[in-house]
Amino acid sequence: MSIDAEPVAAGTTQASGPADGTPRSLDLGALELETGGRLPEVRLTFQTWGRLEADGGNAVLVLHALTGDAHVADGPEDSDGWWRDLVGPGKVIDTDRFFVVAPAALGGCAGSTGPATPAPDGEPWGSRFPFVTLRDMAATEFALLGHLGIDAWHTVIGGSMGGARALEWAATYPAHVRRCAVLASCAASTAEQIALSQMQVEAIRLDPAFEGGDYYGRADGGPIRGLGLARRLAHLSYRSEAELGQRFGRDPQGSEQPLGSADRERRGRYAVESYLDHQAAKLVGRFDANAYLTITEALMSHDVGRGRGGIEAALGALEGIEFLIAAVDSDRLYLPEQSEAMAAALPPGVSVDYIRSPIGHDGFLTSAATQLEPPLRRLLG
Amino acid sequence: MSIDAEPVAAGTTQASGPADGTPRSLDLGALELETGGRLPEVRLTFQTWGRLEADGGNAVLVLHALTGDAHVADGPEDSDGWWRDLVGPGKVIDTDRFFVVAPAALGGCAGSTGPATPAPDGEPWGSRFPFVTLRDMAATEFALLGHLGIDAWHTVIGGSMGGARALEWAATYPAHVRRCAVLASCAASTAEQIALSQMQVEAIRLDPAFEGGDYYGRADGGPIRGLGLARRLAHLSYRSEAELGQRFGRDPQGSEQPLGSADRERRGRYAVESYLDHQAAKLVGRFDANAYLTITEALMSHDVGRGRGGIEAALGALEGIEFLIAAVDSDRLYLPEQSEAMAAALPPGVSVDYIRSPIGHDGFLTSAATQLEPPLRRLLG
Repeated sequence: MSIDAEPVAAGTTQASGPADGTPRSLDLGALELETGGRLPEVRLTFQTWGRLEADGGNAVLVLHALTGDAHVADGPEDSDGWWRDLVGPGKVIDTDRFFVVAPAALGGCAGSTGPATPAPDGEPWGSRFPFVTLRDMAATEFALLGHLGIDAWHTVIGGSMGGARALEWAATYPAHVRRCAVLASCAASTAEQIALSQMQVEAIRLDPAFEGGDYYGRADGGPIRGLGLARRLAHLSYRSEAELGQRFGRDPQGSEQPLGSADRERRGRYAVESYLDHQAAKLVGRFDANAYLTITEALMSHDVGRGRGGIEAALGALEGIEFLIAAVDSDRLYLPEQSEAMAAALPPGVSVDYIRSPIGHDGFLTSAATQLEPPLRRLLG
Repeated sequence: MSIDAEPVAAGTTQASGPADGTPRSLDLGALELETGGRLPEVRLTFQTWGRLEADGGNAVLVLHALTGDAHVADGPEDSDGWWRDLVGPGKVIDTDRFFVVAPAALGGCAGSTGPATPAPDGEPWGSRFPFVTLRDMAATEFALLGHLGIDAWHTVIGGSMGGARALEWAATYPAHVRRCAVLASCAASTAEQIALSQMQVEAIRLDPAFEGGDYYGRADGGPIRGLGLARRLAHLSYRSEAELGQRFGRDPQGSEQPLGSADRERRGRYAVESYLDHQAAKLVGRFDANAYLTITEALMSHDVGRGRGGIEAALGALEGIEFLIAAVDSDRLYLPEQSEAMAAALPPGVSVDYIRSPIGHDGFLTSAATQLEPPLRRLLG
């Protein structure tokens, strides 16, 4: 691992530069990856909110989930921040008080280097983009400290894959993390999570428009059906059985007739099918299939104990960091017992806080997430 | 609905004919389907075990699940019966005492008419095969009574989709069912079950070798990847998160290296991925993709209350039938609460029996199913 973060590459902006919630970037040079690959040029895109104090002590790093991005709170002319209930002026992660920094993950499609980025030959990386891990993501983000003139994050925080990234941050750079919040996540991807991920990857690869990953330039936009199927699968794991039952039951979608006629292709849909179609279409409109694949495989690799003597050893060593571990009680993807196990493996004194919601995993993103305010206030001090 | 079951079509065998567990069939003529389609020629394949008593009072109808078939117990020269732990000489469904009849579902690929069957033009039905429901399946099976000279089944029994079929049998032909066992099933497919089914259907349709359903004759065997992905998805719902975690954890498969190298297509697999690959390959080797699609859509349509004033009215009317309702406590596809709701809607006196097993839905098929022996003995008398 080597990151050429000093001096800051020409053309990048400085900490005091742009307005809150506008994209900025940092050129890191070459990156040697954990599992052997190499990227000759890495750009990290990020956004910030608030003002960094002179001592650099009020910087909060917010890490996004699988299909998230750096726009965690609202920008100057939008109200699109994906966690705007929790991050903003006067919110629990108060941008009048904290300097919030949110990077876009390496391997994604939200600005940082990923499979759709041009390789040195000018063509998109596509199938040639190397395997990356959550540790590779953390390594790129480490460069933000030097760039912004910060010694340690006041807090590193994330939910779902963002929580896994936060935990990796703490385990990899413990001297540079004062507090860490890991929400609706776990210490290592489980067999179940790996299985669900495998299916999503397979759905993308199955689409004939995937072309092995080199679909850029196709008029049809590439493997949008495969990516849509992956999203359906993922979304089902983000919601609870009970929530789907209460919202949709066996209702047909509008006037559609799900009890098919003799013409099989024209069978109408149930409401829950239409809902999943909508979730698929929304993601397909904003996400690159190769990026989905890359980040999903990175998440499969998540194991904070890898190369550290196992999870107990890795987490037990994090004496100097104050942790908040939270779970959604109805989460069926990141089970509450996985948060409990994580808390138990950390140094003594960490208990799990709960979001009580029937919604499932997505509870950490919806209005239910305001239940995190008391424990976050306690953590943030 | 019209079934031309009398006289028995030429070439079909009689009740006393073939050896236990060998295929036989019945030509039913034309079938008008519940949702408007029509099949001009329907053949029902079935197998039997044991001897029918003169009064016809010892006949047990066993209905298979989504990818099951008529070979419920062992044949004369095999030990392949999919429920051989429960059905056979001296077993709880004792073929020395009962005359067991097991049909292959309409729309499947286990002998009865389905999408791979030649249409009147001599070509496989393929994309032209009509939408069928569980009631259409029951309608074809009703002809077995006349053919075999039986007035009513001593017991109708099934698990999973077989349980849904058994419940439909009881609700459609209550005068012809004395006892009914519904195992690991429900009264109507839920939003969750519909969502999981939709994804499986989409996986098959996404495969470029599907060709809209008219893939017969392709040298590559048709949409085997899509069917494999559908099976992975289904199989995950048949097993519990805990079982997968205990069996596989994050283990790599043999000497494979899941932390991919720079060559993305050569990433090694986790053990749980290999397990799902194996499950997919096993199904693909024995099942037709159009049949999977047809039966999956039939299962999506399952609602015993349809056209009967709702589930409570439909089940509350079944006064004359003795029921056994059983659930697997760890089932995440057919939740125990769905069995509880079904029992509550039946006439008073029905409580849910449980298979206690960490394995999940498949508990009704594995060795854990021997826990059904006491309640089945009670039901069978």
